Amino acid sequence: MRMKTLLLTGFEPFQGLPSNPSEQTVKLLHQKKIGGCRVTGRILPVVFLEAWRQISGWIEELSPDAVLMLGLAAGRTKISVERVAINCCAGADSSGKQYEDAPIEPAGDDAYFATLPLRAIVERLKGDGLPAEISSSAGTYVCNYVMYRVLHAFKRRGPAVPAGLIHLPADHGLALLQPAYPSWSIRDLSRAVRLAVETIWPAA
Amino acid sequence: MRMKTLLLTGFEPFQGLPSNPSEQTVKLLHQKKIGGCRVTGRILPVVFLEAWRQISGWIEELSPDAVLMLGLAAGRTKISVERVAINCCAGADSSGKQYEDAPIEPAGDDAYFATLPLRAIVERLKGDGLPAEISSSAGTYVCNYVMYRVLHAFKRRGPAVPAGLIHLPADHGLALLQPAYPSWSIRDLSRAVRLAVETIWPAA
Amino acid sequence: MRMKTLLLTGFEPFQGLPSNPSEQTVKLLHQKKIGGCRVTGRILPVVFLEAWRQISGWIEELSPDAVLMLGLAAGRTKISVERVAINCCAGADSSGKQYEDAPIEPAGDDAYFATLPLRAIVERLKGDGLPAEISSSAGTYVCNYVMYRVLHAFKRRGPAVPAGLIHLPADHGLALLQPAYPSWSIRDLSRAVRLAVETIWPAA
Amino acid sequence: MRMKTLLLTGFEPFQGLPSNPSEQTVKLLHQKKIGGCRVTGRILPVVFLEAWRQISGWIEELSPDAVLMLGLAAGRTKISVERVAINCCAGADSSGKQYEDAPIEPAGDDAYFATLPLRAIVERLKGDGLPAEISSSAGTYVCNYVMYRVLHAFKRRGPAVPAGLIHLPADHGLALLQPAYPSWSIRDLSRAVRLAVETIWPAA
Repeated sequence: MRMKTLLLTGFEPFQGLPSNPSEQTVKLLHQKKIGGCRVTGRILPVVFLEAWRQISGWIEELSPDAVLMLGLAAGRTKISVERVAINCCAGADSSGKQYEDAPIEPAGDDAYFATLPLRAIVERLKGDGLPAEISSSAGTYVCNYVMYRVLHAFKRRGPAVPAGLIHLPADHGLALLQPAYPSWSIRDLSRAVRLAVETIWPAA
Repeated sequence: MRMKTLLLTGFEPFQGLPSNPSEQTVKLLHQKKIGGCRVTGRILPVVFLEAWRQISGWIEELSPDAVLMLGLAAGRTKISVERVAINCCAGADSSGKQYEDAPIEPAGDDAYFATLPLRAIVERLKGDGLPAEISSSAGTYVCNYVMYRVLHAFKRRGPAVPAGLIHLPADHGLALLQPAYPSWSIRDLSRAVRLAVETIWPAA
Repeated sequence: MRMKTLLLTGFEPFQGLPSNPSEQTVKLLHQKKIGGCRVTGRILPVVFLEAWRQISGWIEELSPDAVLMLGLAAGRTKISVERVAINCCAGADSSGKQYEDAPIEPAGDDAYFATLPLRAIVERLKGDGLPAEISSSAGTYVCNYVMYRVLHAFKRRGPAVPAGLIHLPADHGLALLQPAYPSWSIRDLSRAVRLAVETIWPAA
Repeated sequence: MRMKTLLLTGFEPFQGLPSNPSEQTVKLLHQKKIGGCRVTGRILPVVFLEAWRQISGWIEELSPDAVLMLGLAAGRTKISVERVAINCCAGADSSGKQYEDAPIEPAGDDAYFATLPLRAIVERLKGDGLPAEISSSAGTYVCNYVMYRVLHAFKRRGPAVPAGLIHLPADHGLALLQPAYPSWSIRDLSRAVRLAVETIWPAA
């Protein structure tokens, strides 16, 4: 059986922070064989249009069997498997471009559900001792934006490719700089993502 | 010019709590003339199917010019004007009926945006000194359920009727019982809802 | 019977904020007759040494029958009646003077308990529908500093004068600027302080 | 040079929870040589009088060179090195005994400062990438109670023995049961305590 390919994306540091646990996690898992798939890791800029341009290019290039996007949700205490992306973007990105509640795709649906096995991922993580939950809001910033555009693109095509986004809590390193953030170690964060990948494509 | 009619709904107390600020607020504003409309207040049970049966009956009966639903979001610190309702319900309602991530309308869209002037409501409240924000998640409980079904029903009809849901923080009375909840006075909560109604239908 | 005098202090705005609910509350209650006493309100700078210089001067001048200090504890959700002030100061004040865990009074005790009827105040506020609690930390900033010095000074004198500090949550106006803060209306905050004063010296 | 002895205490599970990270951490470090000392681990019941009876017995028996108590502060996000214990106890313990703001030692001071190198411990943990802070309140429950009684007892004796208490955040296992708790892995918690011990008695 052909080895599956999973495209795993993280984001660059943003808003003046020196690191981003989604980037650190992607770098740790890049090229790893996890469960029944091999991970191809890529890092996105926190820039609305450019992030989509890059991820859509990688999807063309790699024809991945699944797409798992990671993002940082500083302030959350658990691994948040996002249920839905909405057709709305807001905030200023790293290029300085600012949106205020603008539609992402004027002809798109109001929202799209992720096509990952959300409940199975959450149960797997909890079964391994890691707090996790399904979240019903990926926000309106670049995370929601790429999640919406990826789901919109796959919806218009033929056979389904599982796709979705997981928000990570801050890591301990960020919490040293922003004391209000709850935090996990990078080790715990990357273990959680590894388990999520195994849930999408278990080893044969 | 005909006086407009606004259907304003709140919920009964639930989960063992003795009161619900959404109910208290609706009772304070029932029959009041606010801005360019008269408010008709109604109280819903925290029961998925029955809440929809009742609110759809009142919409038939009253043909309101706008529908504003209120709910309690204990734990939030601000007035939350909800942006979107999703096609998913979860949790056990007051009748004991339990759902786990079930679709509300199998043939419905994944989500519907509220058709209220969200940004104008938030700016109006803030202009009057009351913290408010647009929220991107109404949860997956009965609040999201009735909001989804109302928006789905109006979407299938002809001319648009502004409809949506506002989540209230806990009131001081509930915070006496559940000390972890941030809280407002009922007076502040009802002033916020009054301002929201005025924003939907300003006085001529 | 002679009318009692209560010295009620608040603080100036600080750390770039445009207002301070402790100042606003003191101004609303200044010169008011509440319960069995008349309130004399005074506003302190958020400056360690100068705040003490001023409050000790007022105590000399007024010989108050009780001293109630108010401060802002942005982030808290309830009225916090402080139990204890500790012999430690830290942080940079509005004059730029910075301390890092320095003793306030090298010969003082490690801490002093407030001499207000803490439990009675909390029960009175809750009885009137306002969330309140005894707090076991007034922090290490200027609030704790003046509370410590006032309690230290009274401890060395003869007859006891009830003294202590109440921390207020942020008000709605501050929460408009700092969205992470839970908030109350100034009306609710000043009602709470009025009830606390009535508890210290009930009307005859 | 004689190897130093450090008495490290944790608490049994309480309030219906199945485990306590302070107990788990003590068991991991018991009998370990850390820095310049050997750790003797002991587990306390969450019972006011009995906890003090046991820890005072171990201090008699072991004559430790330092006493480090650990407790659980569910809801906190960082390692909290406690600055002060106050002469007040409140709450119902595991034996059902209930106190409401009672003095611990009627003839004791209002509070005692910990005699550990607080700032050095916090800086050491942060230098190793673990969020930590000095806390100014150990609460009024059994943690504060044993900390107060140990500090009171050492204060009345001759040569000083460093003593204090560190509050741990919930661990991931507890957060699975109580989803509102921020959490760390037991691995991260025990690494933090190990670093704290090394700071008290560095290797020669």
